[in-house]
Amino acid sequence: MYRTHNCGELRLEHAGQEVTLSGWVQISRDFGGLKFIDLRDRYGITQLVFDTEDNPTLGHEARKLGREFVVQVSGKVRERTSKNPNRDTGDIEIEVTDLKILNASKVPPFTIEDDTDGGDDLRMKYRYLDLRRTPIQENIIFRSKVGIETRKYLADEGFLEIETPCLIKSTPEGARDFVVPSRMNPGQFYALPQSPQTFKQILMVAGMDKYFQIVKCFRDEDLRADRQPEFTQIDCEMAFVTREDILNTFEGLTKHLFKAALDVSLPDFPRMSYDEALQRYGSDKPDLRFGMEFVELNDVAKGKGFPVFDAAELVVGICAEGQAGEYSNKDIKNLTEWMQRPQIGAKGLVYVKFEADGSIKSSVGKFYSEEELQSWGEKFGAKKGDMLLILSGETEKTRKQLNELRLEMGRRMGLMTPGVFKPLWVLDFPLLEWDEDSERFHAMHHPFTAPKLEDVAKMMDGDHETMKSLRADAYDLVINGSEIGGGSIRIHDRALQEKNFKLLGFTEEQAEYQFGFLMGAFEYGAPPHGGIAFGFDRLCAIMSGQQSIRDFIAFPKNNQGKDMMIEAPSLIDEGQLKELNIKLTV
Amino acid sequence: MYRTHNCGELRLEHAGQEVTLSGWVQISRDFGGLKFIDLRDRYGITQLVFDTEDNPTLGHEARKLGREFVVQVSGKVRERTSKNPNRDTGDIEIEVTDLKILNASKVPPFTIEDDTDGGDDLRMKYRYLDLRRTPIQENIIFRSKVGIETRKYLADEGFLEIETPCLIKSTPEGARDFVVPSRMNPGQFYALPQSPQTFKQILMVAGMDKYFQIVKCFRDEDLRADRQPEFTQIDCEMAFVTREDILNTFEGLTKHLFKAALDVSLPDFPRMSYDEALQRYGSDKPDLRFGMEFVELNDVAKGKGFPVFDAAELVVGICAEGQAGEYSNKDIKNLTEWMQRPQIGAKGLVYVKFEADGSIKSSVGKFYSEEELQSWGEKFGAKKGDMLLILSGETEKTRKQLNELRLEMGRRMGLMTPGVFKPLWVLDFPLLEWDEDSERFHAMHHPFTAPKLEDVAKMMDGDHETMKSLRADAYDLVINGSEIGGGSIRIHDRALQEKNFKLLGFTEEQAEYQFGFLMGAFEYGAPPHGGIAFGFDRLCAIMSGQQSIRDFIAFPKNNQGKDMMIEAPSLIDEGQLKELNIKLTV
Repeated sequence: MYRTHNCGELRLEHAGQEVTLSGWVQISRDFGGLKFIDLRDRYGITQLVFDTEDNPTLGHEARKLGREFVVQVSGKVRERTSKNPNRDTGDIEIEVTDLKILNASKVPPFTIEDDTDGGDDLRMKYRYLDLRRTPIQENIIFRSKVGIETRKYLADEGFLEIETPCLIKSTPEGARDFVVPSRMNPGQFYALPQSPQTFKQILMVAGMDKYFQIVKCFRDEDLRADRQPEFTQIDCEMAFVTREDILNTFEGLTKHLFKAALDVSLPDFPRMSYDEALQRYGSDKPDLRFGMEFVELNDVAKGKGFPVFDAAELVVGICAEGQAGEYSNKDIKNLTEWMQRPQIGAKGLVYVKFEADGSIKSSVGKFYSEEELQSWGEKFGAKKGDMLLILSGETEKTRKQLNELRLEMGRRMGLMTPGVFKPLWVLDFPLLEWDEDSERFHAMHHPFTAPKLEDVAKMMDGDHETMKSLRADAYDLVINGSEIGGGSIRIHDRALQEKNFKLLGFTEEQAEYQFGFLMGAFEYGAPPHGGIAFGFDRLCAIMSGQQSIRDFIAFPKNNQGKDMMIEAPSLIDEGQLKELNIKLTV
Repeated sequence: MYRTHNCGELRLEHAGQEVTLSGWVQISRDFGGLKFIDLRDRYGITQLVFDTEDNPTLGHEARKLGREFVVQVSGKVRERTSKNPNRDTGDIEIEVTDLKILNASKVPPFTIEDDTDGGDDLRMKYRYLDLRRTPIQENIIFRSKVGIETRKYLADEGFLEIETPCLIKSTPEGARDFVVPSRMNPGQFYALPQSPQTFKQILMVAGMDKYFQIVKCFRDEDLRADRQPEFTQIDCEMAFVTREDILNTFEGLTKHLFKAALDVSLPDFPRMSYDEALQRYGSDKPDLRFGMEFVELNDVAKGKGFPVFDAAELVVGICAEGQAGEYSNKDIKNLTEWMQRPQIGAKGLVYVKFEADGSIKSSVGKFYSEEELQSWGEKFGAKKGDMLLILSGETEKTRKQLNELRLEMGRRMGLMTPGVFKPLWVLDFPLLEWDEDSERFHAMHHPFTAPKLEDVAKMMDGDHETMKSLRADAYDLVINGSEIGGGSIRIHDRALQEKNFKLLGFTEEQAEYQFGFLMGAFEYGAPPHGGIAFGFDRLCAIMSGQQSIRDFIAFPKNNQGKDMMIEAPSLIDEGQLKELNIKLTV
């Protein structure tokens, strides 16, 4: 037996007990005839004391201990003279009588502390050391907890966890598949699933009624920041449901997770249509931790002789509270340049400052009278000290740019309060997006999403322009400006599914080859159904108030898709290639 | 809203209520002016009644309904005049007032009944219909429940569920890997994990203390019956533990699962060494639902002039209770031929019958006196009416053959009682197996298994012969003759791991290339650790008293590794191959 207790559980009430602990040497300090060691494991840190004068043999052994050595110690729990109130075990220490070195450690290449001195690459290579750091360990523990609570909640709601296969069929639609050559079927390939979409629909056709799975998904995409080639979804599907059933179930799940994992009680989630979200925030995933809503100025700003606004489809702005005094001309210039970077692409930025002394300053002061500018301020509810920031141009682009500005001002003004969570359901997305380049429609959600019931007839019979106006019965859950997940009511009718594939540019043969099994299934009593999927890595990060998903994944890959620790991917030998009937072309 | 209740929940207490149900038409019957329909969903079957005389319009609609149509009905719950006690909802029926056809169904290619008329191939192709059958649906529901209970138990025991990556590095050791070409790293490949073995050990080095995962594993093997290219493990690892800690934890888990999922209370599991299991049952996974233990006869059977036994290394038999009168000479001959088939390869089979009338009949009667045969019987505790079946030859082979015979007799005699569960821990496996063909050792468990503590010194310094005698600190859980899983205490010391790789025929370079990260991790404070993995598919099948894992997997592959429903694997297009820098050679 290696231990009677872990390093996080001893308290004053254990004083006098003989105990055995095992763990890692976090730090050691010498004080005259005493050696103090902090012993660490997943559960906490306990202070060990070696009386090196009374017991020189033990003292000699203890002096061998370096950082990250693994030891087993026995001794008596005693009350500390100087307690550490910041530590659960801070009232006690162990008077060590026996010490056994279970394993030595080389000096770690970076410090195993909350703030480490290790760079990204080094920490990826020695991931097992990075994972010993408390902040990362807490993330992994948090993720485990959220997973367990998700399963408890969904199982209690009657969902079955059903595993769908990993070796499936490649469908060139959407993102790139990872593929797996089949040795037994020469020349043929499996694909790794980008999501279990078609399988979960098949499970509904199979009568499973309520399905979920916490499941790995794979996308062979060029990795932008914070994308991983393999990621995890909370994936769900329900039969005989409308949108309302799904929103209620997953709002319930989300509330449960926040309560169980964070002790945060979320109120009912507001809902907003896609159109409204774009109009009010310029984004289909607005951060509602702060206001700064868009105010449109076409009626008051156009036709007054300012050519930029006059030529614009939309003049729209936000009001930055209390910022008039904070922004010098130089600051405004910098902000304008920030907006003009190619990533955002604004042409310019108009400001109106309502100074504390009651005066009004504006970059468009010569085009508008003070009364006019005052009336703009009223539209925003601006007070003395506030500053309007106004953009203009083509509607869609301008809204996107203003969204970036709103988020940047929110950051600068400290409005993205940690620990505050603002969930939002975004509803009624467009079904199809017209792509000018490829001259075809793309599915906004995916090809299996149903149009809203009232749009079905239009979809079957409408003309090209009508198709652009179709609304999908789709929904996203957004928290603090991040998309946690989304879903839709699915098509369960063969004719409608065929029509959708046609609109998306599939030939009949392509549709049949790729999704014939699903359309076939629809002919054998497919129930109405719908579902949703949450990004599990993202959900954990957002709940923890962190931006990056990487430290919620035990073994993430870097931006080149490499696992730096095991050095994968790697070469494989000729024999393997031969068995798989493939040859390299590099 | 599609339903107020599901098809399994209405009882007599609901009589008089207006309800709405949705589900599938299982069967319909006409009785004069009434039409009865059994409506089915995952939760049960509810009888619907349509009064086709009183409501001819509704009757007309109802007559359109074929098998597997999906319908929504509303009506009043009423007590049945002739109740069906075999059905939970058998006391009531629904007097339908509204009917809506949600989706039609073609006539299914096989009947959706407990016993279907569909062949394997057809059922695989229309898996969504096969999954509607109650026995398969029950399996999938059972599996979900076992998974949930596993997670609950392990989470309560302080285990963290941590996901390990699917895209890892190919290691040509052991079974064949499935590999995944990396587009971003031309010429390089990921491999899909055969198990998370090295990652879970790394998690112990990382201080995670107790890890588990219900995880997909992949092996590109030629598929013998009941093997799947992707399968699921309950995978675990613990730090600072000895064998005892692991056996206790997972015996606890197993008992919990049987209790929670089957309401079966298992007594403490017996334990047996590998050597003892082979000696007593000729197998390291004996079925303990029945006795028929091996009795060795060398001392009484050899040296009496029967050349076959005299030449044999081992003479060993079993006693088939009450079978003397059941086996005619012809039956014995057939049984002997069954044993002589190449799969088993016995040379012959000796019997000794203790007839009911007190006489003894034996195929070796002319070599042994009646007293001698009587003394054999005493060794077996044979009574009148019993029959001894005896084999001889080289020890290992003979035991294997007698194991087959024991199992066959157990089957024939009906001793493998369904609903009876006999778990067994098998301990102390050999560490290494010498392979004559390749003239090298193979790891009996895997290369990371530690020798028993008392064998460590021998392993570091011993000669070739000593290596054959090393015992591993490894263990298997066997239930009813099936291996549920196994594990071991692992090596956590670099020098010992290097020695093991050397014994297994790795060059230093190979060991470093493949497992350098793990050996490196051992140098930074690796704690003692060990673990276990259960075959999840197998566990579910055994608990359900079924032989095949296939119907515990929602979407299994056939013996050619094909998914017949989606038709995977399949061809991929030239563009994909080109992007991946590979070319087909077929």
